[in-house]
Amino acid sequence: MAKVIDGKAIADAMMNELAVRIESLKSDHRAPALAVVLVGSDAASEIYVRNKIRRCEQLGVRSIEHRLPETTQQSDLLGIITSLNNDEQIDGILVQMPLPTHIDEKRVLNAIRPDKDVDGFHPVNVGRLSLGEADAIAPCTPQGCVTLAKSVLGPDLSGKRVAIVGRSNIVGKPAAALFLAENCTVQMLHSKTESPQQLAAQADILVVAAGRAHLVDESWVKPGAVVIDVGINRVQQPTGSKLLGDVDFDSVTQVAAAVTPVPGGVGPMTIAYLLHNTFQCYLKSVG
Amino acid sequence: MAKVIDGKAIADAMMNELAVRIESLKSDHRAPALAVVLVGSDAASEIYVRNKIRRCEQLGVRSIEHRLPETTQQSDLLGIITSLNNDEQIDGILVQMPLPTHIDEKRVLNAIRPDKDVDGFHPVNVGRLSLGEADAIAPCTPQGCVTLAKSVLGPDLSGKRVAIVGRSNIVGKPAAALFLAENCTVQMLHSKTESPQQLAAQADILVVAAGRAHLVDESWVKPGAVVIDVGINRVQQPTGSKLLGDVDFDSVTQVAAAVTPVPGGVGPMTIAYLLHNTFQCYLKSVG
Repeated sequence: MAKVIDGKAIADAMMNELAVRIESLKSDHRAPALAVVLVGSDAASEIYVRNKIRRCEQLGVRSIEHRLPETTQQSDLLGIITSLNNDEQIDGILVQMPLPTHIDEKRVLNAIRPDKDVDGFHPVNVGRLSLGEADAIAPCTPQGCVTLAKSVLGPDLSGKRVAIVGRSNIVGKPAAALFLAENCTVQMLHSKTESPQQLAAQADILVVAAGRAHLVDESWVKPGAVVIDVGINRVQQPTGSKLLGDVDFDSVTQVAAAVTPVPGGVGPMTIAYLLHNTFQCYLKSVG
Repeated sequence: MAKVIDGKAIADAMMNELAVRIESLKSDHRAPALAVVLVGSDAASEIYVRNKIRRCEQLGVRSIEHRLPETTQQSDLLGIITSLNNDEQIDGILVQMPLPTHIDEKRVLNAIRPDKDVDGFHPVNVGRLSLGEADAIAPCTPQGCVTLAKSVLGPDLSGKRVAIVGRSNIVGKPAAALFLAENCTVQMLHSKTESPQQLAAQADILVVAAGRAHLVDESWVKPGAVVIDVGINRVQQPTGSKLLGDVDFDSVTQVAAAVTPVPGGVGPMTIAYLLHNTFQCYLKSVG
């Protein structure tokens, strides 16, 4: 049976350390501040935003919530972002996705000042990450994946073979950039890949971010591999709705050395890195 | 014996087509214009710049050459870039690398307006390429690699396994992004990769951009693979200096289906895509 990687405990430890650092800067500086913009009332988005704001409070990060109606005009949203960009008291800006369909998400993300882009989705930050620049703000979930892999394998991942299933802009591609920067040998697998399980089964670290419940079973996993499950799929079952990962945990645990659970694996790390990124922006601002 | 991929012929055909398109726009618009900035007198850079300018002339692209002494101050170079950025008669700006060591290359590349960045090295363009945005300007050499692979395998590379040896910002990483956008299954190999030849020998398309003369012999190549050699290594031999690729052509030709020669493979494609990128910038400007 594989070790279960306790993402919640690792995230809590990270956030406790952040809270101490924030507290220690308090006497000389204002608190870090994160603006969270939520348009409409998507149920899942509501939960995500509430969790993020709760964590901010716990860590001593000031959160500024902008709740806007579903019918908000794009120009009004862009106006709010401009004022947040120009507000020197704000370190980070997060616009919760998805946005209503009448708003151009790309346009909105590109409007956020790159040095306040705590999600790391702005093209400038995507580019800097790819170029290996130290001042890049990297997306939260992929940073969490790297840290979870290191929690099992140690800080040096050099030479490890990594397979990433899924090539989204928010997980798969930035995860590839981050593992490459760790000197891993990275392969990206996706819907057009032939025999993906055969390739996945060569990897020392398997990151699954495909968005398909229980896509990956033990046939995808090399014995002794570390498996990171990014999937969060809400499925209806006879007993009610349930969150399932992209990984069939019960199957994979038979062969892997370690595997993340869903929930309690990657999810908490995403919030921890949101606060980490906010703190980094804050340090640059008050530093 | 593998087919020899005639990069020169493919590049010439591309450039002939561009010349026709430029000619056809001439009656209604000014000619496309490329500014080329060369600092110092590096011998190889001189040759590259001369070739680029000669090609511009052949295609009806106006070239504006800025030759600056080795001792040029960074601030003066940045001033020239600013004026080229603001000049509406200039479509593309190319600063020939390498720059003298007292100048910060990153600073200079970042100063070029992204929509005039015909090399595709600006973080915004790197980010857009990674994000799969249609208006990204992609680096020239990697675009050439994709086109050469297609010249053998046809326009649909979907599902092909690609191994890229070398992870530079100017070739390896953007090549990975481009082949991924073609729905290939991409693996990046580099100096920290264990058993790279074994992994390379699984690839349908092998792109070698490691900067090491004759690194890759037939043991790296799957029978029937297409091999793209990006290397240009000047080595001293008893008979004088010679240009060698990263691929040992005589060895690889025994097993590959097709292989690019050095010179006459990727090199001409790089110039063809420089003119392609300049033309794309021009179309946006006059369009």
